Amino acid sequence: MTKTRLYLYDTTLRDGQQTQGVQFSTAEKIQIARALDALGVDHIEGGWPGANPTDSEFFAQDLGTRATMTAFGMTKRVGRSAGNDDVLAAVLDAGTAAVCLVGKTHEFHVTTALGVTLEENLTAIAESFQHITAKTREALFDAEHFFDGYRANPKYALSCLRAALDAGARWIVLCDTNGGTLPADVGRITGEVIAAGIPGDRLGIHCHDDTGNAVACSLAAVDAGARQIQGTLNGLGERCGNANLVSLIPTLLLKDPYASRFETGVTLQALAGILRTSRMLDDILNRVPSRGAAYVGASAFAHKAGLHASAILKDPTTYEHIPPETVGNARIIPMSNQAGQSNLRARLAAAGIAVEAKDPRLGGILDDIKLREDQGYAYDGAQASFELLARRALGLCPQFFEVKRYRVTVERRKNKRNQTVTLSEAVVVVKVGDKKMLSVSESMDASGTDRGPVNALWKALAKDLGPYQAYIDDMHLVDFKVRITQGGTEAVTRVIIDSEDSAGKRWSTVGVSPNIVDASFEALLDAITWKLIRDGAS
Amino acid sequence: MTKTRLYLYDTTLRDGQQTQGVQFSTAEKIQIARALDALGVDHIEGGWPGANPTDSEFFAQDLGTRATMTAFGMTKRVGRSAGNDDVLAAVLDAGTAAVCLVGKTHEFHVTTALGVTLEENLTAIAESFQHITAKTREALFDAEHFFDGYRANPKYALSCLRAALDAGARWIVLCDTNGGTLPADVGRITGEVIAAGIPGDRLGIHCHDDTGNAVACSLAAVDAGARQIQGTLNGLGERCGNANLVSLIPTLLLKDPYASRFETGVTLQALAGILRTSRMLDDILNRVPSRGAAYVGASAFAHKAGLHASAILKDPTTYEHIPPETVGNARIIPMSNQAGQSNLRARLAAAGIAVEAKDPRLGGILDDIKLREDQGYAYDGAQASFELLARRALGLCPQFFEVKRYRVTVERRKNKRNQTVTLSEAVVVVKVGDKKMLSVSESMDASGTDRGPVNALWKALAKDLGPYQAYIDDMHLVDFKVRITQGGTEAVTRVIIDSEDSAGKRWSTVGVSPNIVDASFEALLDAITWKLIRDGAS
Repeated sequence: MTKTRLYLYDTTLRDGQQTQGVQFSTAEKIQIARALDALGVDHIEGGWPGANPTDSEFFAQDLGTRATMTAFGMTKRVGRSAGNDDVLAAVLDAGTAAVCLVGKTHEFHVTTALGVTLEENLTAIAESFQHITAKTREALFDAEHFFDGYRANPKYALSCLRAALDAGARWIVLCDTNGGTLPADVGRITGEVIAAGIPGDRLGIHCHDDTGNAVACSLAAVDAGARQIQGTLNGLGERCGNANLVSLIPTLLLKDPYASRFETGVTLQALAGILRTSRMLDDILNRVPSRGAAYVGASAFAHKAGLHASAILKDPTTYEHIPPETVGNARIIPMSNQAGQSNLRARLAAAGIAVEAKDPRLGGILDDIKLREDQGYAYDGAQASFELLARRALGLCPQFFEVKRYRVTVERRKNKRNQTVTLSEAVVVVKVGDKKMLSVSESMDASGTDRGPVNALWKALAKDLGPYQAYIDDMHLVDFKVRITQGGTEAVTRVIIDSEDSAGKRWSTVGVSPNIVDASFEALLDAITWKLIRDGAS
Repeated sequence: MTKTRLYLYDTTLRDGQQTQGVQFSTAEKIQIARALDALGVDHIEGGWPGANPTDSEFFAQDLGTRATMTAFGMTKRVGRSAGNDDVLAAVLDAGTAAVCLVGKTHEFHVTTALGVTLEENLTAIAESFQHITAKTREALFDAEHFFDGYRANPKYALSCLRAALDAGARWIVLCDTNGGTLPADVGRITGEVIAAGIPGDRLGIHCHDDTGNAVACSLAAVDAGARQIQGTLNGLGERCGNANLVSLIPTLLLKDPYASRFETGVTLQALAGILRTSRMLDDILNRVPSRGAAYVGASAFAHKAGLHASAILKDPTTYEHIPPETVGNARIIPMSNQAGQSNLRARLAAAGIAVEAKDPRLGGILDDIKLREDQGYAYDGAQASFELLARRALGLCPQFFEVKRYRVTVERRKNKRNQTVTLSEAVVVVKVGDKKMLSVSESMDASGTDRGPVNALWKALAKDLGPYQAYIDDMHLVDFKVRITQGGTEAVTRVIIDSEDSAGKRWSTVGVSPNIVDASFEALLDAITWKLIRDGAS
């Protein structure tokens, strides 16, 4: 049976940027657009040219994407011709192959928000689309508030859709702008629109997550016959966000009835990269990825319940609805239960540490991990510290050097020009063999900015490790994450440090203490020790 | 028309605790149970007595909740009588009014996971429910993997439901254990179960969010006739979590067809407290509340798009599907646009700072906020710092004292007993009027634990402020949040400090710097200054 084509329209760069606190730079927009193109979406809505300088700058690039680059705007304003509307002109000037114009379909909005007559609005829609199709652009009509408008006045709402369709719009996109429509209504109304003569293969759906149903509403529209889905990566978007394509795409490709009925521009191979794409966006936004996200969350295939964990070992399909690797994810069996031991051995083997199945020290390591996790340690995100913990328990972790003491000072005062300046300084005393070494460093960077006590401590620690210095010369800190794991005045701090060597190899270590400097120092020591072991220092 | 009763079953304390990294203390479980009872759910599933010491401890309490306290367990094991199954006995020993037992309904699981015959499993279900109903407990059957089981062998899956029903189970709960079933299938199969003779008013639905559809699947089951919804606060739960009751409850109470067809135990008054309940759980878990959460997210009613913001001012219903206050939320119009100025004035007025509508300084304050937010400041969570920023711009912020300099030292060394100890010490020099004061403090707490440089700094700063000392004697730090707002080595740190006075009044301040000590110091200064202004110091 031949499959029906479903089209995916991404608006991460436009509606996604409506997320509170989100403002992409042009470079970030380009990075996201390339990732979307690699994923295989059909349209990339890049922004509203003219409304926002970054957007115009973005459209000035020629990325040569396979996906159709699309500019967003609004139908011409009443009282001027389409050709004389400067807002519309700016949108067309972006020169994109496709143009999506938002227009009113809800009589209440036409009269209240726009303050024009219903007839004037219909004309504005028709003339706008005649104008852009005359310029041979692919035209999309973003039918704002369609579902509310249809409930209020179905006849008028439909006449707005027809006006755009008759004027040459390729796609009529039913928008639930306020996100208040529930899946059953989206399905029913979409079906009625098709019954009223708007072909399903010309219909798109654009949902928001204000009731937590954006994904389900999109599927309901497809069930009813719509053939384009609009959404964003990680469900970014105005208010509660848009339909999350990272949740929708795996469902469309992997689960029936969709998998057997439809095909999209996304291949199974590209699907395996969707987790990385999702993480890339979180990195750009410096957001902590949602552990519980459908398909791509770090916990999406974590089996904590004892019953589940043991059954999973017999057959993964007992508690997994899809194989984790199909979306680039992986199974996690928490080590804090019986099923954990074999899982622990697997993780150690992966780190090149072989342990016998019956080795009693495995239980000890699990208990130690449990204990330390209660104290605030987190080993999921600190594989290198996990390995060192195991090595210490197994007597496989040489003590390369001993830290005798350190002292960090942060001083803030007025300089000669009476400007307030801050300077951090660190002294570290380590003993290598029977040789004692004192190192001192301050934390001023090239630009003269003080980067704080942890930076100073790292510089001092990495300054002179005698025979081991050569091993760490090519290593540097690439990221530093801080989390208070207990609120209140008893606050305990968890620090996770990502390090990298000249070959681009990355490793993560963790430290925990009520004193943030101590926590950081612990993570720094682990980072160095792991590097020395990895490079075979002795 | 009389409304049909829908029942809400909360499993935050049981399935919710299956969330990776979540482990409630008994005190936390009690706090959550009281909040759930105040909200108005019908059942509170408290845990699995016997499987987990905390759970047994929790059930030992008598909270006198209106909601039915429920213990979770599993049907008796094959090969022993219900009366001789110690696991089942432990569940009954908890003495709860209701008991929910999970049992198999999927032939594959009966044979693969349990390794018993289909007949033995049916008998185990029947005898288990006869046993607990004989003890006059309200009995619920958690039909594990029901949807997958029904697809594989509908006849057997249904016979499992009937076995429990005939043995006296009050509720038959259809569980989509793996979370892989989509809304349309949940609706269809629930309808077929009712058609097969299991009454809808005896049916519950238990969904997981592995495809991002748990809320929609729950609604689909209700549409088909199920009358109990199981879920958790904030969608906690195994893997991607359970159906989120914080999303479902507002939909059921505020939106049609549900609002007009059904009633629950939740009043509109209690609904207005649901945001607080959601935040309380995040506080317990020390989680950053999801800004985009349906109904209760901080961004759920934030109107960033210019078109939206201006229309909202004309009529909120133009871009809001429900009034924010009905769920205890509030509208946010970002201040970085025209609509922002009136919003800014409103926020200032709320802080007792009156500014004329046309005051040009309003624009300056907005620009300043925008600029500082780009640097990493966040004023949403730091109202006191926001007020001070505005006061400075308006010349309403007296300089009570001047910080000449400070110095913080963190030292780690071996003590006489050769134990590694860390000590933080801070020296602060402030000038009040023409009087200079030096204060020094260390950060050791009562238990002898070093609490780090920020703690030492706070103690030194609050030690002697001369004439202002009396104003700050009753203030203390209650929370400290750190966030790295730029990743990598250029990391910039945002610190938010919550302070409280003896009257229980709380206020939040923010500081930003590449140096975490400096960032903290800035937030501390704001905290003190705000207190002095609030208490009318001069």
